[in-house]
Amino acid sequence: MNFVIIGGDAAGMSAASRAKRRNPDMEVIVLEQTKDVSYSACGMPYNIADPERDIDDLIVRQPTVFREKQGIDLRTGHRVEAIDPGKGTVKGRTLDGGPFQVEFDELLIATGASALIPDLPGFDLPGVMSLKSLEDGRRIKRFIKEHRVKQAVIIGMGYIALEMSEALRTRGIEVVLIKPNPLFLPWMHEKLSRAVREEMEAKGVQLYPGHEVKGIEQGDSRLRVICADRALEAQMVLVAIGVQPNSGVAQDAGIALSIANSVAVDRGLLTSKSHIYAAGDCADAYHVVTGEKTWIPLALRANRAGWAVADTVTGKAVTLPGVAGTAVFKVFDLEVAHTGLTVEEAAEHGFEPVEMTIQGRTRAHAHPGGSSIGVHMVGDRKSGRLLGVQMVGREGAAHRIDAPAVALHGKMTVEEFVQCDLAYAPPFSPVWDPMLTAANQLLKSL
Amino acid sequence: MNFVIIGGDAAGMSAASRAKRRNPDMEVIVLEQTKDVSYSACGMPYNIADPERDIDDLIVRQPTVFREKQGIDLRTGHRVEAIDPGKGTVKGRTLDGGPFQVEFDELLIATGASALIPDLPGFDLPGVMSLKSLEDGRRIKRFIKEHRVKQAVIIGMGYIALEMSEALRTRGIEVVLIKPNPLFLPWMHEKLSRAVREEMEAKGVQLYPGHEVKGIEQGDSRLRVICADRALEAQMVLVAIGVQPNSGVAQDAGIALSIANSVAVDRGLLTSKSHIYAAGDCADAYHVVTGEKTWIPLALRANRAGWAVADTVTGKAVTLPGVAGTAVFKVFDLEVAHTGLTVEEAAEHGFEPVEMTIQGRTRAHAHPGGSSIGVHMVGDRKSGRLLGVQMVGREGAAHRIDAPAVALHGKMTVEEFVQCDLAYAPPFSPVWDPMLTAANQLLKSL
Repeated sequence: MNFVIIGGDAAGMSAASRAKRRNPDMEVIVLEQTKDVSYSACGMPYNIADPERDIDDLIVRQPTVFREKQGIDLRTGHRVEAIDPGKGTVKGRTLDGGPFQVEFDELLIATGASALIPDLPGFDLPGVMSLKSLEDGRRIKRFIKEHRVKQAVIIGMGYIALEMSEALRTRGIEVVLIKPNPLFLPWMHEKLSRAVREEMEAKGVQLYPGHEVKGIEQGDSRLRVICADRALEAQMVLVAIGVQPNSGVAQDAGIALSIANSVAVDRGLLTSKSHIYAAGDCADAYHVVTGEKTWIPLALRANRAGWAVADTVTGKAVTLPGVAGTAVFKVFDLEVAHTGLTVEEAAEHGFEPVEMTIQGRTRAHAHPGGSSIGVHMVGDRKSGRLLGVQMVGREGAAHRIDAPAVALHGKMTVEEFVQCDLAYAPPFSPVWDPMLTAANQLLKSL
Repeated sequence: MNFVIIGGDAAGMSAASRAKRRNPDMEVIVLEQTKDVSYSACGMPYNIADPERDIDDLIVRQPTVFREKQGIDLRTGHRVEAIDPGKGTVKGRTLDGGPFQVEFDELLIATGASALIPDLPGFDLPGVMSLKSLEDGRRIKRFIKEHRVKQAVIIGMGYIALEMSEALRTRGIEVVLIKPNPLFLPWMHEKLSRAVREEMEAKGVQLYPGHEVKGIEQGDSRLRVICADRALEAQMVLVAIGVQPNSGVAQDAGIALSIANSVAVDRGLLTSKSHIYAAGDCADAYHVVTGEKTWIPLALRANRAGWAVADTVTGKAVTLPGVAGTAVFKVFDLEVAHTGLTVEEAAEHGFEPVEMTIQGRTRAHAHPGGSSIGVHMVGDRKSGRLLGVQMVGREGAAHRIDAPAVALHGKMTVEEFVQCDLAYAPPFSPVWDPMLTAANQLLKSL
């Protein structure tokens, strides 16, 4: 029996490694269109920040290790163009254009996601780039060096945009961020997003939310990002307006799609076709708070889903409970973290959301070095359930968020969460951690 | 109706403030034997570390605030010596020796705990001190200054001993720790406790576990701590071998005691006598993992229990689920955290414990500044439940521990915990957080 995997990134290589470990006799074939597998994509902004570091430092395991040490039939430069679920075959072309065909017993679609590029003039100009693959990272790093970039425009204000603004500022590059939505971080409570905005502006980033980009032009020595009321000049433009699932090949094969055109999978990661699974950024997931489908492409889920498929195809059927949408990013000296639903999402899913936002301290009264931390918490008036938490602070927000994330998995009420015996010592929190203070305050409104 | 509270520390003042806030007409009387209320006891080692800071910086709220702003009848210098549950009275003496008597409708015993002092020669010598009350902190700080202390011996190796060893080293004082038990941190897995030991020794602390102290003698200019095989000279001796609940006055009144002579309370903090509650370090608690009684005196529980009693006596009956035994301390550059049961405790309570210890990284592959973090995890073979976690690392251990603490409250299995959607970004953890890696490994053994 063989196991064919389309895509050699987090989900694909996790599945391949685990399947081979669980069943060394299984033939495991990975078809990856690029030459890179197994690298820390999330580490790219931090690597780009440092001109002395090689971007290939982000490679966790070389293709030869997968091939020679793990016995995985890893075929890089293999782009899959069609799946035939009935015949059990995938077809495609190699980088040199030659056709290939592979038969599968079990198939995993782990094609990931691609950066969204607007269909507007000039987005194909040299110096207009996005950051998704390691090759994108190489290209950006090379471009900055070769063109001695001093000015950059980033289109978009998601977490890649924010992380890249820090990376570029670290290299002394002037950075302007621009996007159509007038709200800076629309999913975040305004008191918390203001802290992020102030931090970025204090570090010299110019933010222009509420400006639609009409196109990009090539000037004499600079690119010009054209908006209705202004034009921004830069040597480099980073397009970071989001990603979309690479689900075309699945759709063409008649496999059902889901939210945002991600591949629909059940709790066992099976698609609408038997023996065909999907995992990683191309696939949807159940949300543990709503119990409904969602599409939140994140690395941990990709790894976990890859493992689950490997377990299933090697004989141990696994189902996954789903995601809580927990995420964190660092932007300059701030940690920004969230889990679960926003007030708006909660209302959309039939909850009766009540929210509370507090400013607490990261350390105990009178303990030196403490700073402010903002906590926003959402509960459900009907059931009392905890629905979501957001945090922004200079320390401790990133790891704090895991506690309410676990509470969401446990379907805890705010009252149950407020009774949790959290750790206390003066260097790390007040006696009542800011999360508990927010929960105590929220309880009064529920 | 009145509400009388014996003890004006965390539990007592939390109860007083909350009762008065919920029912401003209620007469709330607090009888506190010292002159200090509402201070951050846990902050004392960090304050002692800094000769420039006044120890009274640790006072969160002055007595006058409780009296004038909050309307609490706070009587400092009032030592309660007897409770008469039948008559509903407490009797005692003020600091000047005068007797007093107070009638109560509802009574809260919040007498806290005292440092254990062994009944051995020389423990009453000047320069032999312990650290529990703010007055203890004042005395230690004054003593260090007046005697220009350069050498100290700490008897005991609990977290106060460890925190104080850092505080004294910070002031350039030579520090020796000694105790009878040959195991350094007996509750901690050996691989993790070794990291703590190495950190302390690297910072110049001498550790002598396995040495029983026979007594202390006054030498010409130094104290001499006498053991079977050695004598340690120092200007100052800190006795930090643990604490015991101040439950004598409760016991004398016929109130039932519990583990380690703590006052036995139900989930509503009621003692064996009606209208008499106990909260804080003097009282026991239910353990959320075992469901049985335990005595783990910690600040958050004290605050929470004080609030619960206040809610109950003001008409909103509250019960508390209990404690998970979550605790954290900092020792030099290490964060040491734990929650739940050790393997030994788990076995004692009828579980079939299986353990796993891993060394992970605090940040992602190739992210600068990461360091090693040790995670020890205990699960139950029979039920699959997560039972306890210990962590030691240079960053992130303190806040990470809250995630498994919440899982213990939710009675999660290791399998459920391993599926939790925790936060990931390269500056904060690998994709699989070390906690998840430990849980994944533990799962294989369960």
